[in-house]
Amino acid sequence: MPLKLKTPLILVNFKTYLEATGRRAVELAKKAEKVSSETGVQIGVAPQFTDIAAVTEATEIPVFAQHIDSIEPGNYTGHVSAEAVKEAGAVGTILNHSERQLRLFEIDAAIKIARNTGLVSVVCANNQSISAAVAALNPDVVAVEPPELIGTGIPVSKAKPEIVKATVELVRRVNLKVVILCGAGISRGEDVEAALRLGTQGVLVASAVVKAKDQYRVLREFAEKARF
Amino acid sequence: MPLKLKTPLILVNFKTYLEATGRRAVELAKKAEKVSSETGVQIGVAPQFTDIAAVTEATEIPVFAQHIDSIEPGNYTGHVSAEAVKEAGAVGTILNHSERQLRLFEIDAAIKIARNTGLVSVVCANNQSISAAVAALNPDVVAVEPPELIGTGIPVSKAKPEIVKATVELVRRVNLKVVILCGAGISRGEDVEAALRLGTQGVLVASAVVKAKDQYRVLREFAEKARF
Amino acid sequence: MPLKLKTPLILVNFKTYLEATGRRAVELAKKAEKVSSETGVQIGVAPQFTDIAAVTEATEIPVFAQHIDSIEPGNYTGHVSAEAVKEAGAVGTILNHSERQLRLFEIDAAIKIARNTGLVSVVCANNQSISAAVAALNPDVVAVEPPELIGTGIPVSKAKPEIVKATVELVRRVNLKVVILCGAGISRGEDVEAALRLGTQGVLVASAVVKAKDQYRVLREFAEKARF
Amino acid sequence: MPLKLKTPLILVNFKTYLEATGRRAVELAKKAEKVSSETGVQIGVAPQFTDIAAVTEATEIPVFAQHIDSIEPGNYTGHVSAEAVKEAGAVGTILNHSERQLRLFEIDAAIKIARNTGLVSVVCANNQSISAAVAALNPDVVAVEPPELIGTGIPVSKAKPEIVKATVELVRRVNLKVVILCGAGISRGEDVEAALRLGTQGVLVASAVVKAKDQYRVLREFAEKARF
Repeated sequence: MPLKLKTPLILVNFKTYLEATGRRAVELAKKAEKVSSETGVQIGVAPQFTDIAAVTEATEIPVFAQHIDSIEPGNYTGHVSAEAVKEAGAVGTILNHSERQLRLFEIDAAIKIARNTGLVSVVCANNQSISAAVAALNPDVVAVEPPELIGTGIPVSKAKPEIVKATVELVRRVNLKVVILCGAGISRGEDVEAALRLGTQGVLVASAVVKAKDQYRVLREFAEKARF
Repeated sequence: MPLKLKTPLILVNFKTYLEATGRRAVELAKKAEKVSSETGVQIGVAPQFTDIAAVTEATEIPVFAQHIDSIEPGNYTGHVSAEAVKEAGAVGTILNHSERQLRLFEIDAAIKIARNTGLVSVVCANNQSISAAVAALNPDVVAVEPPELIGTGIPVSKAKPEIVKATVELVRRVNLKVVILCGAGISRGEDVEAALRLGTQGVLVASAVVKAKDQYRVLREFAEKARF
Repeated sequence: MPLKLKTPLILVNFKTYLEATGRRAVELAKKAEKVSSETGVQIGVAPQFTDIAAVTEATEIPVFAQHIDSIEPGNYTGHVSAEAVKEAGAVGTILNHSERQLRLFEIDAAIKIARNTGLVSVVCANNQSISAAVAALNPDVVAVEPPELIGTGIPVSKAKPEIVKATVELVRRVNLKVVILCGAGISRGEDVEAALRLGTQGVLVASAVVKAKDQYRVLREFAEKARF
Repeated sequence: MPLKLKTPLILVNFKTYLEATGRRAVELAKKAEKVSSETGVQIGVAPQFTDIAAVTEATEIPVFAQHIDSIEPGNYTGHVSAEAVKEAGAVGTILNHSERQLRLFEIDAAIKIARNTGLVSVVCANNQSISAAVAALNPDVVAVEPPELIGTGIPVSKAKPEIVKATVELVRRVNLKVVILCGAGISRGEDVEAALRLGTQGVLVASAVVKAKDQYRVLREFAEKARF
């Protein structure tokens, strides 16, 4: 990895939630920083593009973009370049999130651009074959989202363990080094522990943290269970 | 218009030019502010998403996003919401730039979302029939780019005057109120004056300013010619 | 119009329904031809690309593509050119259907390519402002789909008459010549009559005909009510 | 493979070339059939959607679509379903051609839909990492296009042999069964032989055949060199 990301890693995706926009993005990032320093567990945050600079100024935790375009600087009005998020302070970027899916060649190009710019690439994959394909593109991190866990309400800790294990094995057959995050089915602390026991090295979470009544408490619970 | 934009307006699109990224975005915006206060001519800037907050903090001139997605806050990882750019300090947004062209329904929806959020919409249109169609969608501003002037190197001041006039008339037949900017063929001060004489109320420029050796001097020349 | 399409026009969109694929596309087109010749009402059909040639060989009624790409012949693997659908026997094409929405510049370019190729363009528009914008692009036909009628189950004959009337008036303010079809809210014969009384010159229908138990009977009812 | 495709395979992509549209698509397919029966070498053709039915009726050679959408039959106006091309007589489909690139999840879904419908999937990949990723998705055929050979004018027979070999090896590390075609750098018969010697099982060609003054002669030369 271009940067030493410690694992286990808890990566919090702020999406375009109002609860994590502007001033509230900074507040949530500060809570994440507090929990990280209290527990020693690595926590990263992925705010909106417009909030990256403010969050990186206000905290020391690793900040990720939610997406970059596979472009070089230049005539690309309305696009997001690796240079722009890097200069704003980001250390990495999510790519191909299920809400922002990319053409195959764009994922490949964006991973390479990220690497050349010194950004960690976290590529999402929402089933087994896509996870293997993404692993073959050699990103730094793949966030696997077994379809049995997406939007079904089934948490990892209650799902059949084979589901996540099989995806991890498939990824490992293609790529021995890539860091694997579990990107679905994480609602409670025990899900974080379950995901790590099944061979992943962290989790990608969003609403479970951002939409929580007490964001600090949930982050703290997740971090503690990540040190099992 | 939701906000009182004075005309003539010079709107500077920073694109993803390295010369206008990060710290250099703020520097360029400060030059624009200086020229605006020296000449009394309204100048707006459209930096990258990641630079909007820093530019609005450092200057008092109107700041525009280069694009917004036609989404509401929520589950839209990697997208740009009107709320996010508004909270970062933007007063408006460019839409449908020729480098970031949108589906018709997306332009329509984004104009409405911008209006509801209190953002000025500046919609680009790169020929006559598209200019009329955009005008029918009732944005605050339409930036017309006669194809005879895009990338041909022909400046407005040297082109046949009918070209821009005809587009302005076509737009006016559909929409009496929309502000019209000339979005192509602006290289020198005399092009700004020519564009205004032909019935537009301002210009949308990019490389002529951003890539200039002396950005301040070019902006100053443009602003002076806008007061003809 | 490049071709003399008689109005009122009933245009039947086959979508990718299995009930109107392959052999069944030809059968449905023959029923449409029978009703058309029995009633004197113009009926057009829009089968899938793969079925255009077979339908045009088996019948004499006007056949439309469901979409064309805004491309010229050449290096466009997997695209649909105007020339290809023309050579297969189509006389026109639907564009920008709500299930296949296009970038604004693509609609503009496809209308022009269709005209140059001798194809009638039928451009869909799913609200009032989009209808006006489409009319400004000067297609041969605009199919308006008032959002109050899309997927609400409210038929035109039961809706407040202002809804369709207002859209028709808005289109007419921008374009006096364009043929206007009503593209939503047509379930029964009385809806066809209501749509025509409200100022449209025909209807664009799909499931009401294709999914009917007795396709012939529904087409016959629609055609009879179109002669009110 | 759902169907027994013999190798070596020469697959001719008709793109949207006028030289291979309508009546001329059938004529070209007949030449391919003639060469195939004279030489015993398997030749497939990929005409436009609108020509699939006519080509399958006029010849016995395997016909491929140039693309399918990852959809099921239903409310998908303007799309191309696997069922439609299957019913028109196609035995397979190209996917993700460099002129029609797809989102990663669309490639994955289309491969599965093709398989369930009994269609062979031929997925294009225009560099090494993308070739490995595509192989991980387990299509029937991958058409590799080393970037050193795309549009450079360098034929396979003159390129450094390592280029194609390395791609083949990378694909084989991920997928032992997938058929590999060489999809770039094929201008003359010796390029077909070179591609096969380097470990591919066939070629995907377009302009070299379609744009040839004597299409039969070029096809014949390609087929003879495929029997080296």
